[in-house]
Amino acid sequence: MKKITILGSTGSIGTQSINILSKYPNDFKIIALTGNQNIELLLKQTTEIKPKYVVIFNELIYKEKKHLFDHLGVTVLSGLEGLIEVATLEDVDVVINSVVGNIGLMPTLKAIQAKKQVAVANKECLVTSGEILMREAVLNKVDILPIDSEHSAIFQALQGNTLKDVKRVILTASGGPFRNTSKKDIERMKASDALKHPNWSMGRKISIDSATLMNKGLEVIEAKWLYDLAIDQIDVIVHPQSIIHSMVEYHDHSIMAQMSLPTMEIPILYALSYPERKPMDFETVDFVKLGALTFEAPRHEDFPCLDLAYEAIKRGGLVPTVLNAANEELVYAYLKDQISFYDISKYVEKAMNHYDIRQLTSIDDVLDCDQMTRTYIKEMLK
Amino acid sequence: MKKITILGSTGSIGTQSINILSKYPNDFKIIALTGNQNIELLLKQTTEIKPKYVVIFNELIYKEKKHLFDHLGVTVLSGLEGLIEVATLEDVDVVINSVVGNIGLMPTLKAIQAKKQVAVANKECLVTSGEILMREAVLNKVDILPIDSEHSAIFQALQGNTLKDVKRVILTASGGPFRNTSKKDIERMKASDALKHPNWSMGRKISIDSATLMNKGLEVIEAKWLYDLAIDQIDVIVHPQSIIHSMVEYHDHSIMAQMSLPTMEIPILYALSYPERKPMDFETVDFVKLGALTFEAPRHEDFPCLDLAYEAIKRGGLVPTVLNAANEELVYAYLKDQISFYDISKYVEKAMNHYDIRQLTSIDDVLDCDQMTRTYIKEMLK
Repeated sequence: MKKITILGSTGSIGTQSINILSKYPNDFKIIALTGNQNIELLLKQTTEIKPKYVVIFNELIYKEKKHLFDHLGVTVLSGLEGLIEVATLEDVDVVINSVVGNIGLMPTLKAIQAKKQVAVANKECLVTSGEILMREAVLNKVDILPIDSEHSAIFQALQGNTLKDVKRVILTASGGPFRNTSKKDIERMKASDALKHPNWSMGRKISIDSATLMNKGLEVIEAKWLYDLAIDQIDVIVHPQSIIHSMVEYHDHSIMAQMSLPTMEIPILYALSYPERKPMDFETVDFVKLGALTFEAPRHEDFPCLDLAYEAIKRGGLVPTVLNAANEELVYAYLKDQISFYDISKYVEKAMNHYDIRQLTSIDDVLDCDQMTRTYIKEMLK
Repeated sequence: MKKITILGSTGSIGTQSINILSKYPNDFKIIALTGNQNIELLLKQTTEIKPKYVVIFNELIYKEKKHLFDHLGVTVLSGLEGLIEVATLEDVDVVINSVVGNIGLMPTLKAIQAKKQVAVANKECLVTSGEILMREAVLNKVDILPIDSEHSAIFQALQGNTLKDVKRVILTASGGPFRNTSKKDIERMKASDALKHPNWSMGRKISIDSATLMNKGLEVIEAKWLYDLAIDQIDVIVHPQSIIHSMVEYHDHSIMAQMSLPTMEIPILYALSYPERKPMDFETVDFVKLGALTFEAPRHEDFPCLDLAYEAIKRGGLVPTVLNAANEELVYAYLKDQISFYDISKYVEKAMNHYDIRQLTSIDDVLDCDQMTRTYIKEMLK
């Protein structure tokens, strides 16, 4: 029986995780849930799951709504302290980090130091602090288990092999909604056009990142840290069907690929069942019906965010944090139709050159740099 | 340093194995070579490699040619006894079985019982005696390492996983030279037409087996024994590019696939390096240049040998031995233009119904049944 804390249980990965775990009541027990604003859902989850702990991150909402949980026999905590407490409970085996943004950084670090397995769905963690978190994971002999399709595919393709035998990893990208759109037309594309993703149903922010290929760029950075790769060992290929979720090529030129129909359920369940696999009720890939799996080179010049991410991780230090924070603020502006598609990459690059800080010593550095970059972008857009 | 015996060193897999092993002089040492008729090549190999033992299988040739090896400081043996001796040398870690036909059965059994790792390139071994050999492998805690593209792909896709989590394996087939030929036209096809294989350069017998899909049928039987599968856990799919060499689907609906450009060198090196991988100088898959990997259902009705193999392993016992022996004799007859393409499946089926022997107790049973079936087919074709 694995005992689990879910940081960010009311978000997309959090709710999917609960949904999957509930199908294996003899294998998993959820000990703690955490939410921020969606108290209605957090209350519903608490009623159904009966965890030992609930964290309402926002202190004001905590004070206002705590009483709703009183009769449920659950300890209600709040704030960063609350997140850290449930991430390090002696009773817990695995901590799922599916919070949005940088809030999960410190709880994740503390979970690793408390020798918990950490299943990471949150992108910021590894993009901004991969260097620190992975060093701690090695020191504490802790597995960092990826919960997203691409890194789970790589993780699966690495099983039974050693990292020293890896020649390169090949991250697959759907290509996003503008894969077949000319640069001239992309220039005029609004967020509403970008929100129509071909294969995956996603949140608004990640849908824009998929359209700019920044999403893939961030995954390149995550892969670098997760699997201790040199940056030239990470390739990106466009594979519109999203059946092959990524591949690992070994130095004997054998390539291992992981495939499935697009779903987050497989990576979630694999991360939590690892090193075993549990039977799951899901549709299988019908290769004959599918007919073909196709591949294209990414259009680097028309989607400059991908190369910016490579550049950020080459520079290292806090530059990926700048990339990530600037991008997030710019995507919000794009979603409000305040800037154009190519303004995103233009201003990300500007921010990276403005804060070209190639050192990183602590999570606090990351949090400061993140704030500084966001302010810089907001000022620029005024 | 792994010490190796190569049974059948003058054949296609034998010579390729020597070629690869010679590139890693610090990792592998060849202790024994064996050949049958190609004494010129065996002499050349012995001169270059300087093994401790050479076996000339054919006793008459042995007597006639032994003196040629006298000055090379090598112990020259002969016959089945010689093969068994070099397959069980205390000094040897891995035995490669790349002999043609049933001659390798007894040496392979003895190698397993002597707790040697066995790398199997010979199809007959597992098709006819898989039940016996795998039972002995389990008893002696010995790895049976497949040296062919498909089973090596499955073996690689199983690493880091357990057999109990396997839902099915998917063997890929190129489809052979008649993949796009109508049944009416196939009926009239001669062996010379079948010998033009699209992806692999192969021997004449296996080229015909590729055209009839019997080759894939035999691989289904091998997979059943190698990976302890139920027969309905083994699917075949046509994949004309021969880039995906086979796949394993787990019960969480995750599929692991192994890919490379078509070559025997990767499976040979993997089997001998297992569980490590050694760097190899070979071309990588260029997915963009490739453009697409395509899939089709096998045409069961037009290539009846595939279903005959499924039927043979369903019946079990000696029926796969009958299938294999009958097929081999019929392929020789087809190569001499003595019978038509569909006569192969017709007479294989007839032999399977004539010798519907569903029990198997020893390697001697297999050898007797093999002879009996060959005589039956030869009589039938007179």
